[in-house]
Amino acid sequence: MRPYEVIKAKRDGQVLAPDVIRAFLDGYVKGDVADYQMSAMTMAVFFRGLTPPELAAWTRAMLESGEVLDLSETPGLKVDKHSTGGVGDKVSLSLAPLAAACGVPVPMISGRGLGHTGGTLDKLESIPGFRVDLSIADYRRLVKSVGACLIGQTATLAPADKKLYALRDVTATVDCIPLIASSIMSKKLAEGIDALVLDVKVGSGAFMKTIENARVLARTMIGIGSEMGKTVVALLTDMDQPLGRTVGNALEVKEAVEMLRGQAPADYTELTLALTAEMLVLGKQASSIDEARAKLRQAVTSGAAERKLKEIVKAQGGDPAAIDDLSRLPKARTTVAITAEAAGFVTAIDSEAIGLAAMALGAGREKTSDVIDPGVGFVLEKKLGDAVTAGATLVTAHVNDDRRVPEVIDRVRRAYGLGPAAAPSRPLVLERLA
Amino acid sequence: MRPYEVIKAKRDGQVLAPDVIRAFLDGYVKGDVADYQMSAMTMAVFFRGLTPPELAAWTRAMLESGEVLDLSETPGLKVDKHSTGGVGDKVSLSLAPLAAACGVPVPMISGRGLGHTGGTLDKLESIPGFRVDLSIADYRRLVKSVGACLIGQTATLAPADKKLYALRDVTATVDCIPLIASSIMSKKLAEGIDALVLDVKVGSGAFMKTIENARVLARTMIGIGSEMGKTVVALLTDMDQPLGRTVGNALEVKEAVEMLRGQAPADYTELTLALTAEMLVLGKQASSIDEARAKLRQAVTSGAAERKLKEIVKAQGGDPAAIDDLSRLPKARTTVAITAEAAGFVTAIDSEAIGLAAMALGAGREKTSDVIDPGVGFVLEKKLGDAVTAGATLVTAHVNDDRRVPEVIDRVRRAYGLGPAAAPSRPLVLERLA
Repeated sequence: MRPYEVIKAKRDGQVLAPDVIRAFLDGYVKGDVADYQMSAMTMAVFFRGLTPPELAAWTRAMLESGEVLDLSETPGLKVDKHSTGGVGDKVSLSLAPLAAACGVPVPMISGRGLGHTGGTLDKLESIPGFRVDLSIADYRRLVKSVGACLIGQTATLAPADKKLYALRDVTATVDCIPLIASSIMSKKLAEGIDALVLDVKVGSGAFMKTIENARVLARTMIGIGSEMGKTVVALLTDMDQPLGRTVGNALEVKEAVEMLRGQAPADYTELTLALTAEMLVLGKQASSIDEARAKLRQAVTSGAAERKLKEIVKAQGGDPAAIDDLSRLPKARTTVAITAEAAGFVTAIDSEAIGLAAMALGAGREKTSDVIDPGVGFVLEKKLGDAVTAGATLVTAHVNDDRRVPEVIDRVRRAYGLGPAAAPSRPLVLERLA
Repeated sequence: MRPYEVIKAKRDGQVLAPDVIRAFLDGYVKGDVADYQMSAMTMAVFFRGLTPPELAAWTRAMLESGEVLDLSETPGLKVDKHSTGGVGDKVSLSLAPLAAACGVPVPMISGRGLGHTGGTLDKLESIPGFRVDLSIADYRRLVKSVGACLIGQTATLAPADKKLYALRDVTATVDCIPLIASSIMSKKLAEGIDALVLDVKVGSGAFMKTIENARVLARTMIGIGSEMGKTVVALLTDMDQPLGRTVGNALEVKEAVEMLRGQAPADYTELTLALTAEMLVLGKQASSIDEARAKLRQAVTSGAAERKLKEIVKAQGGDPAAIDDLSRLPKARTTVAITAEAAGFVTAIDSEAIGLAAMALGAGREKTSDVIDPGVGFVLEKKLGDAVTAGATLVTAHVNDDRRVPEVIDRVRRAYGLGPAAAPSRPLVLERLA
């Protein structure tokens, strides 16, 4: 079939054969299918969707457009976690050392922050010396010797996804469930994993605004995993407020280390434990979630998890002394207390607005070429359900550029909803799908 | 709004403001909006449609991307006809001289044939010496002095449409009613017309396979005309069999001249009269269709229409002697009688299949770079409802390349349906919309 016929068939709601999808995506990587044809195709997919066999073929073609790592030289089942992206989501920073400390190797290829969401790579780079641009050879070596390695996407893994994502980003087909699912899964399956835990965020700060959409996305990714012979477990988790108390790169690293010391806020601690427990069960280092949680608590109290983090930092060129002494992490020049104008209870915190305010401070990127300021960000002094008096500090902003302060104060105040009574609290983990 | 936001808004079913559409199309012509963004946009338009104000803005932006001719130096109301394309449709060849002979100036910018449909320009070029590549200055001059001029699209008229059509052609968004309507109307409105008659073909050989779709397309174009202050009348006409008896360039010129002599088949004659009568009324050269038809009959019997055709031919560099003596038109080397294998009544003639068979003989183009053979084509000896004996000639093929004969015989035989009884005949003009 010519590219024209493939686009027309999808446009008209026909089901494409696996070899047709394969040829179309291979043609795209080679340049025989033009960008303008692929963008018409992805828009047709936006409207028509992909059936499970179509989606499996699409994902497999993206996966096999590049190198698919085989980490069998590392004994045991390799398990990774992927989050669909939130605000204040520093789970990977504590989850990877926890899982590795409990015997589950974690091969983790992460992304950078864009728009209102932060990125694991940017957070890690706020640790002095930490390098995320290791070679695949070093990555293999560290997964085996340290038990975890966290790097950025390389040119050799799923290049079709890289090319396609850049196109979707400028043609308004990013928020399309089959395309999101195939993008995530093609990258994750290329890493060399045996199993995957998904954290699908739901709420104002997430890509998926409703639980129904989150469920469809989770089931779609579980389906792809199953077509590829990989076990995938998904937790649908609340993103109606930022996770933990910090938003901003070095501030989040600090909170992640505190989590490994048993000193972090309950929501962030609980989400990390819930996701990591799933990894331990998938990696056959625990036979039940209860047993896994007991092992994780032990890794915290014994200090094993924090030691594993320092081992990872050291192996990737970072300074482990900055973990022992968190004051050595980058800091902003000054702090500004953003206060409540009236008394009440916190009834809403718009995560996306907080994320965009943090971006305005320099903690995130508007476009990929922007440079991150690692020290700036927010500490949320009040979270959902907290009582507030007039003049009380809602958020402490860590600031380098004073010119942004008026805008940031305004954005943060508008992100907070105050009401006469606390709303009933939502559970953090809304649903588990497997 | 950035191009991304415009695409996303259309994708999500929002109505775009006229200035947003204008900026998007202007950006496309300038190159600020990339091909891959426009193809995503047109695919979104395929699914979401355009409201009448959006469509008017879209058409206006395409129209005003180039020169918009003002033919006010020619007195009277200038009227053109556009057909959505059929097989054996040589109406323009007889309609233009008829209308001009009756006092309606006809500024006609036509297209070439592609795929199964023929093109007026290709037919005209089978007249020895006839040139369709005149300058706009010559075009203006001839509309005024001769009363009609038939040329091809120039680079200066609606360049946005030219660029967009080429993109739609490779991204499967050609058959999208608002895009068809805006493409036709932007070109026609650029010609300098005051009013327009549309011949919207319905049936197996047409773009619009159903009367419902044809009606939507016609109403869409009438709506655009009305937004632009131009009167548009549409006839929905039958294209369930080729028009007249000839398919092929010189063969169709011959049949057109015969029409002007009152010697052509009834269907082709009737369609020409119906469309041209509308033009006379729109051009205020007749106060009713009946009066217009009487004038047209008079132009045939007096020879005025044929004289006008020769005047047009001469003015555009052609040899009028080839009209007086039709044997001077290009001819094929040989003819082949394609016969019926059994007796019966003709119950179907698949126009698209006949058009593709003519293309296989060399009468049409598969791709724009193909060269037309002006002499080849078909004379349909049997049409819908005709009785056929076994061995009777269905079609006489005019052939230059014998190697194509077996394929062409097979295609033509399969295009003809024979049954035990004649089907009730369909009217030629199905509906009139204004």
